[in-house]
Amino acid sequence: MANPSLLILAGDGIGPEVMAEVRRVIDWFGANKDLTFDVSEDLVGGAAYDNHGTPLHDDTMAKAQKVDAVLLGAVGGPKYDDLDFSVKPERGLLRLRKEMDLFSNLRPAQCFDALADFSSLKKDIVSGLDIMIVRELTSGVYFGEPRGIHREGNERVGINTQRYTESEIARVARSAFELARKRSNKVCSMEKANVMESGILWRDVVQEIHDAEYPDVELSHMYADNGAMQLVRAPKQFDVIVTDNLFGDVLSDCAAMLTGSLGMLPSASLGLPMANGRPKAMYEPVHGSAPDITGQGKANPIACILSFAMALRYSFDEGAHADLLEGAVERVLADGARTADLMGPDGGTPISTTEMGDAILAAL
Amino acid sequence: MANPSLLILAGDGIGPEVMAEVRRVIDWFGANKDLTFDVSEDLVGGAAYDNHGTPLHDDTMAKAQKVDAVLLGAVGGPKYDDLDFSVKPERGLLRLRKEMDLFSNLRPAQCFDALADFSSLKKDIVSGLDIMIVRELTSGVYFGEPRGIHREGNERVGINTQRYTESEIARVARSAFELARKRSNKVCSMEKANVMESGILWRDVVQEIHDAEYPDVELSHMYADNGAMQLVRAPKQFDVIVTDNLFGDVLSDCAAMLTGSLGMLPSASLGLPMANGRPKAMYEPVHGSAPDITGQGKANPIACILSFAMALRYSFDEGAHADLLEGAVERVLADGARTADLMGPDGGTPISTTEMGDAILAAL
Ligand SMILES: CC(C)[C@H](C(=O)O)[C@@H](O)C(=O)O
Ligand SMILES: CC(C)[C@H](C(=O)O)[C@@H](O)C(=O)O
Repeated sequence: MANPSLLILAGDGIGPEVMAEVRRVIDWFGANKDLTFDVSEDLVGGAAYDNHGTPLHDDTMAKAQKVDAVLLGAVGGPKYDDLDFSVKPERGLLRLRKEMDLFSNLRPAQCFDALADFSSLKKDIVSGLDIMIVRELTSGVYFGEPRGIHREGNERVGINTQRYTESEIARVARSAFELARKRSNKVCSMEKANVMESGILWRDVVQEIHDAEYPDVELSHMYADNGAMQLVRAPKQFDVIVTDNLFGDVLSDCAAMLTGSLGMLPSASLGLPMANGRPKAMYEPVHGSAPDITGQGKANPIACILSFAMALRYSFDEGAHADLLEGAVERVLADGARTADLMGPDGGTPISTTEMGDAILAAL
Repeated sequence: MANPSLLILAGDGIGPEVMAEVRRVIDWFGANKDLTFDVSEDLVGGAAYDNHGTPLHDDTMAKAQKVDAVLLGAVGGPKYDDLDFSVKPERGLLRLRKEMDLFSNLRPAQCFDALADFSSLKKDIVSGLDIMIVRELTSGVYFGEPRGIHREGNERVGINTQRYTESEIARVARSAFELARKRSNKVCSMEKANVMESGILWRDVVQEIHDAEYPDVELSHMYADNGAMQLVRAPKQFDVIVTDNLFGDVLSDCAAMLTGSLGMLPSASLGLPMANGRPKAMYEPVHGSAPDITGQGKANPIACILSFAMALRYSFDEGAHADLLEGAVERVLADGARTADLMGPDGGTPISTTEMGDAILAAL
């Protein structure tokens, strides 16, 4: 059988730096675990714009559709701030999500024991935290039409449309319930059904899918504003949270920050099964392109490495190898390896991106 | 000159309980400070629905338009969960906001010294916190058309419209800049200009108003997801935050929870000046109707009392009297008075709603 294929889109800022460490991890699995991938690389975001005048070339899009999984670094940077909306780095990312139809975005917010002190929250509130936010990723106000800025009389008007169909809600709800069954069997769905009709439909459909197909899973509903509060107040009350594209964007970042270590958090974006049974998939760290530290060897590669671990688990059914990699990361942290973002108030000497990669390879 | 007029809409759940304490405070100012209000009362939310079959009677709406300020308690409760969207308790509140055109919603997130331990965040991250969130309150996805749930083929589709005109953005921006000038002269505007055109217009208009009218104020822009993160990571970096209706809903609740004591936080919703120069205005606590503790005398009346202090300041230009009232509240807290919501992990005996009212009157 052919090797599974990976497309690496390292992107902008620290993207290429952290991805370099992922490549070494991929090579390690090839050399030591007989797990070899066909790896290709291409451009996305500002890097693609600089070369092709578009944040995602059609050829790259076509490649992404064909591979078993895409690994993405990060997109964006101040250099591109004044570009027209249609060619901003983010459009490349959004096009990948939309055209690959990656409707289910898994964002774990997990607090690593060794790092519980880094949170701005009290240790007992976050230690042991392990939430999975399932964010709808291909619809809602990110993609709804009509949209744009136009003139009405003598003023400008900005419009976006929040739009959800029943089937769009149903499929991401299923994905959340499936995940919950492998975890604590508990889902909390968040919307603003008290003010938005799209929220009412969201709530109704999630409830219907639950009652018809997942009655064994414990389901609750919460308004998204209360959700933000509860995440800050007592995050451990949650296991799986399912929510729409925009609320998911804000709430998952809020949840991520609870852990205090953004440089640690991976994500998976999953679509429908391909002919080979694997889901369309893209994996990326939750952190951004971090232009302020780009090129200084300071970036923490762990979020990107753990995104590859998610790829092993969700695309390649290699749960044991994912565990192995995640275990290596935890050991390295427990041993005190710290990149600059993980320096506590008492200081210490940070190690570089490559040194963190070295440490993880050694632990493997 | 006629006494200034107040319309009290105590609403549902703990609304009437906390409002009873506000009435005593109002009476105290009449008896001791020669500051007498013409107070009337009426129904809103579920209470109005129970009596009139609508969450806000037209007569009540008309009264609200005429008074100098409305004081609102809280709306909603499980009893009304299955009502049709059009008559839900929340619609009464939203109608007041919309028809009174209360476009500028001020939500202070302030951490009281005596209560810094109640926050789920570390004390040094939140002690002394004093943020003002200015939320646009009469437009955006809460009110945009088209909206609703309809059928397309054989499935339902839920739609809401995010819509902002230039002048809607401009007026709330001005209100934020004015406030900033009385505080630390710093505004951070939040949107998702990287994915929403309405966010691009928001950012542009805020910047234009700044450059033309408030160049002395320090202005920054942040994506709303990053805003949620930064609020959790280091909230004291902010002074005034200005944002749209939906982001404001979620971010202000997130900010409120940072303080650890939701029962403490007031809000003001301000509109255009009336003929007498006072702005159209409604004041309400940030907390909800708290059905779980309704009728038990457990509710904390402070948020509602501090909302009246905001009324003194913003509607009646009685800053000194507002200071007096706020000072009394701080003293009472420093002396250790605690309602049930303010019980720390070490326990203690909570005082009742009325006892908290007694303590504040005594401190005055
Ligand atoms: C970069 C941006 C377009 C993106 C989003 O808003 O979805 C990011 O914030 C994310 O959460 O992945
Ligand atoms: C009760 C509800 C309609 C309201 C809102 O969403 O605006 C509330 O959450 C608030 O923030 O005042």
